[in-house]
Amino acid sequence: MFRPEIKVVDCTIRDGGLANDSKFTLDTVRAVYQAICASGVDYVELGYRNSKKMFSPADFGPWRFCDEEMLRKVTDGIDSGETKVAVMQDAHKAVAEDILPADESVVDMIRVATYVKDVDKAIHLAQNATAKGYECTINIMAISIEGAPFLDEALQQLEEETDAKAVYVVDSFGALYSEEIQFLVEKYQKYIKTKEVGVHAHNNQQLAFANTIEGIIRGANFLDGTLYGLGRSAGNCPLELLLGFLKNPKFNIVPVLDVIAKVILPLRNEIDWGYHIPYMLTGILNQHPLAGMKWMDSPRKDDIVAFYNEITEDPE
Amino acid sequence: MFRPEIKVVDCTIRDGGLANDSKFTLDTVRAVYQAICASGVDYVELGYRNSKKMFSPADFGPWRFCDEEMLRKVTDGIDSGETKVAVMQDAHKAVAEDILPADESVVDMIRVATYVKDVDKAIHLAQNATAKGYECTINIMAISIEGAPFLDEALQQLEEETDAKAVYVVDSFGALYSEEIQFLVEKYQKYIKTKEVGVHAHNNQQLAFANTIEGIIRGANFLDGTLYGLGRSAGNCPLELLLGFLKNPKFNIVPVLDVIAKVILPLRNEIDWGYHIPYMLTGILNQHPLAGMKWMDSPRKDDIVAFYNEITEDPE
Repeated sequence: MFRPEIKVVDCTIRDGGLANDSKFTLDTVRAVYQAICASGVDYVELGYRNSKKMFSPADFGPWRFCDEEMLRKVTDGIDSGETKVAVMQDAHKAVAEDILPADESVVDMIRVATYVKDVDKAIHLAQNATAKGYECTINIMAISIEGAPFLDEALQQLEEETDAKAVYVVDSFGALYSEEIQFLVEKYQKYIKTKEVGVHAHNNQQLAFANTIEGIIRGANFLDGTLYGLGRSAGNCPLELLLGFLKNPKFNIVPVLDVIAKVILPLRNEIDWGYHIPYMLTGILNQHPLAGMKWMDSPRKDDIVAFYNEITEDPE
Repeated sequence: MFRPEIKVVDCTIRDGGLANDSKFTLDTVRAVYQAICASGVDYVELGYRNSKKMFSPADFGPWRFCDEEMLRKVTDGIDSGETKVAVMQDAHKAVAEDILPADESVVDMIRVATYVKDVDKAIHLAQNATAKGYECTINIMAISIEGAPFLDEALQQLEEETDAKAVYVVDSFGALYSEEIQFLVEKYQKYIKTKEVGVHAHNNQQLAFANTIEGIIRGANFLDGTLYGLGRSAGNCPLELLLGFLKNPKFNIVPVLDVIAKVILPLRNEIDWGYHIPYMLTGILNQHPLAGMKWMDSPRKDDIVAFYNEITEDPE
């Protein structure tokens, strides 16, 4: 019933860090790491390895940088089981020199997030990671606003010029419907012959889990989720739903439920992720969620008709 | 781009009434009615027309009975536009005598909710409605636990013995995945040749909207939604998402957003519908949401591992 090729990546701390400037406490990150390892999920992404030249450590928490020393504080004394550690580098906000040789690092996989326009930067970081002994993926962000022919060219390059294990469809805006997931996964498969296709979905239209399933049906084998959907704006595909669907007996949902109850639900007092109309509207309109996030932080939060009028105003 | 055959039914007050014993204020129901009429949605379901012999008016609000006098208080002075009024009768909890001739009633459509085992009762109520001049649908509940051959027999009967406009797939438990929606809609279509197929989805696994889209792709033309997903336990397919997807120019989303902001969001102080792990677990396990609703009303609400252990305990 299950497909053994499927790999699941928990990116709670990494994507959730976009909602709190990566300022999770060490206890929170250790609890998430321990639960994901105990659940048998394949990868746990503990944050970004972005450059301190581009993000100030005064403004961002440790999980924007994932110094090896911090990562060791997370993993020390916890049985990792079969779970590997991932960090993300943004193609335009990270540097190759921040990556140690893999045998000196806690990290097993580097995920490179990129826009189509930055694909050459992404290839540079990906090949740097490969050369240093890491597994690697390429995650193409904001895919809902990328059209042919540049996307096709980028996919061809990624197939030919990298040793990534997977290339992702990343629906950063939560804008895609299932038919578009089908279209994109099939487009990727035309170019990506020696690697897997991945799906990373956002929940602006309550479609993150459904679109991940659609990816699975079309053959995607790298799947991202987060605990209780924690993530920027409307959040992500909830990991607990994904594990329930996959039915791989190696997964254990109980540690996932336990850490949701004890660690993730209390975070709702600090981070208001999930379904809200401003995020829904940016999703439907295929826009970056930033306008919605600003509105949700304003006193006019619930005046959603005013928000609708603002973001649908025709440009002059 | 849009499919003109599609009819949308707002069932906010009817399904939401399962979460508050149908105790909405008249102002709330009027505001919902006015907004739905202004939005151009095809039908607005204002509650149940169930029997006072089976539900005590002391325990349930007026929208469990929808007396004509109450309905007139809702509709008086509001331009209904093209929107028609529906009420629901439960096959096993309603009587034919409670239905007036259509020309003496505010109601345009009677929706008969039934389990497969009660299909003969449902046919009786449906034909009573037809004979009295109403449009009619049959909504087969708890479809995720109905197997062949009784479902097939019921569908054959509904095709032959009623004049219903549509027969619905009702995923009462929020248990179905897209492949199961496809399977069921195609099964219905084998029998239901002279009527439409409908989809009514619940959101326990965040799939209500996605499953409604899957129904559309497979040819279902009667679609249910509720404002902001208001409904029992995890709630329903959010009407605002459905209108965004459908792109029929006759729909206007602004009155929908406005009533959500002013009337529906404040109801969150009284009704805690939406995605919660206890509802997610009953959905994944294909169980009635009642156990989850009881847990959510208990002091142990957030001890979700205990709930998981309780509902997965093997029977002796």
